[in-house]
Amino acid sequence: MSEKVRLALDAMGGDFGPSVVIPGAEIALSRHRDLEVILIGDEAQIMPLLSANPRVKARSTLIHTDVAIRMDDKPSRALRYGRRVSSMWKVLDEVKFGRADAAVSAGNTGALMAMSAFNLKTMEGIQRPALAALWPTLRGESIVLDMGASIGADAAALVDMAVMGAAMARVVFDLERPTVGLLNIGVEEVKGLEFIREAGGILREIDLPTLDYRGFVEGDDIGKGEVDVVVTEGFTGNIALKTGEGTAKQIGEYLRAAMARTWRSRLGYLLARNAFSTLREKMDPRKSNGAVFLGLNGVVIKSHGGTDPIGFASAIDVGFDMARYDLQSKIRSMIDSYHQTRPEPRTPPLEAAS
Amino acid sequence: MSEKVRLALDAMGGDFGPSVVIPGAEIALSRHRDLEVILIGDEAQIMPLLSANPRVKARSTLIHTDVAIRMDDKPSRALRYGRRVSSMWKVLDEVKFGRADAAVSAGNTGALMAMSAFNLKTMEGIQRPALAALWPTLRGESIVLDMGASIGADAAALVDMAVMGAAMARVVFDLERPTVGLLNIGVEEVKGLEFIREAGGILREIDLPTLDYRGFVEGDDIGKGEVDVVVTEGFTGNIALKTGEGTAKQIGEYLRAAMARTWRSRLGYLLARNAFSTLREKMDPRKSNGAVFLGLNGVVIKSHGGTDPIGFASAIDVGFDMARYDLQSKIRSMIDSYHQTRPEPRTPPLEAAS
Repeated sequence: MSEKVRLALDAMGGDFGPSVVIPGAEIALSRHRDLEVILIGDEAQIMPLLSANPRVKARSTLIHTDVAIRMDDKPSRALRYGRRVSSMWKVLDEVKFGRADAAVSAGNTGALMAMSAFNLKTMEGIQRPALAALWPTLRGESIVLDMGASIGADAAALVDMAVMGAAMARVVFDLERPTVGLLNIGVEEVKGLEFIREAGGILREIDLPTLDYRGFVEGDDIGKGEVDVVVTEGFTGNIALKTGEGTAKQIGEYLRAAMARTWRSRLGYLLARNAFSTLREKMDPRKSNGAVFLGLNGVVIKSHGGTDPIGFASAIDVGFDMARYDLQSKIRSMIDSYHQTRPEPRTPPLEAAS
Repeated sequence: MSEKVRLALDAMGGDFGPSVVIPGAEIALSRHRDLEVILIGDEAQIMPLLSANPRVKARSTLIHTDVAIRMDDKPSRALRYGRRVSSMWKVLDEVKFGRADAAVSAGNTGALMAMSAFNLKTMEGIQRPALAALWPTLRGESIVLDMGASIGADAAALVDMAVMGAAMARVVFDLERPTVGLLNIGVEEVKGLEFIREAGGILREIDLPTLDYRGFVEGDDIGKGEVDVVVTEGFTGNIALKTGEGTAKQIGEYLRAAMARTWRSRLGYLLARNAFSTLREKMDPRKSNGAVFLGLNGVVIKSHGGTDPIGFASAIDVGFDMARYDLQSKIRSMIDSYHQTRPEPRTPPLEAAS
């Protein structure tokens, strides 16, 4: 445990670039004594921030580039001007060439997804990467994936996600055999969901020692914390995440308005101030910041683009944990053991057909 | 406006049957002087409840049947034993034969969906029915559809839903030109969403006078009330609804726990009691109870199965509004005007091909 963890930070990512990334790194460095960071971005913007953030100054390397990916560019466009030269591409290079244990960026999600797949490539045996988020629940936290790295899925892709999500749960939650559920809807006799049922069948059949498959869960089971890992196709996952976030904000607004309405409620609010700050902390989206791209040859963490230093520090924390507890090799060995136990593919091999 | 509205109530539907339906009807009848109800279900269970609910006794007709659809039966099974004879089927018959203006059931969703489609049939020009729910937002309420009546959709189905949802918004929110958005995810360059983009193109092109198409919305825009009508395919819609409900419950739990923690917070809670009841009312799922099956030859309202009399009364209210303001003919005329302005189908007609 004495070895250093090295994270490559895209200093230009997010709505605020270095002015959030550098103070965020300062916070994370204060929490992890064996962390070092590689900052990649515009020297002219980064240098002035270092004096105010002494830990970053002391424990970072700076790689200069003046190409930054804009937050609203389409992935294809970002790849055209940002390939090889942008700060986003270069943090991935650090991971690829083994100089960093993970990359963290608050940049444009689509571009980060495209560049990660293009630069790091998909892990052998995995169809496509997935974006896994930490979701606060009544029991603590769960992992929900895919949050939108890929759209559409088949049974094999869902099973891959179950295995990768469980590997992440082992690392993040320190569980021997995390519980896994497939997100589905209550009505059983509906068309179009065969791939989910098929994935459920496979997970039950292979019965991995590293993963406890619990069947289908519905949307309201996520917040209850029914399972440690919730697996769904990316479009639905993204809608679920945003809808949950939207509902939380909405109730926060209701609460604020209700508490400000009369002198009695304002006084009540003052008395219960500590309770409200506990609540605010529980609902604080910054604490769950830092989604993980799973299924690539390397660990990439995506921070919310609009977050502040506290939120960015959480994303760095996630990267730190993934590197420290070796997420990559845990995924690798779980994927391998799944492939060994996996049922025969439905399409017969060539020699059987002839 | 002096004509009576007649609603057929499935007295056996829901987790509690007549013991919720009859008191629920009592509440709704007290609110609507020109409402009459037809109760369908087991006489032996219904009769004893009538003396405690004098408005129901005075303003209802009772049709006896002892076949009730069980809450956990699959639709195919429910159709086998419940066709023609169950209370669920019979409320639909009342609508079909013009004896009721709408049907209300808290029964098994899948069975109600199947029986509605089977008995009432899909409206001419509509591919398939959709389930539309009222969703509380920061601005009031929005309509979200499809909540899971059909799984999967194409562009034409989404456009149909936009038109039907807008017709419902005209009736429920009394708007001349409701705003409509298509639920999508932020990343633009993704595969598999062509049908949503295509639907957006059609809605923009036809530019109906009865519907103001505002483009794509994301999951967190629903709670903000960005648009009056949010359109999505049924699987995603159901997941979004349940996830939103789950998050609301979760925050309610957090709040309860935080307020009970210390004597100061308990005292604060007492002082702010009115504020908390305002909040509780805003978050009360019973007030938004009553989803509407759109696109059938008749109005069918689905109540939550586990609701209480107050919630069931809300579902009756929805049915009352739909009947009173003639949802069916509004949908009919909007669908017709859309079909007249609709762009040429992509497949050329037969004579052009020859």
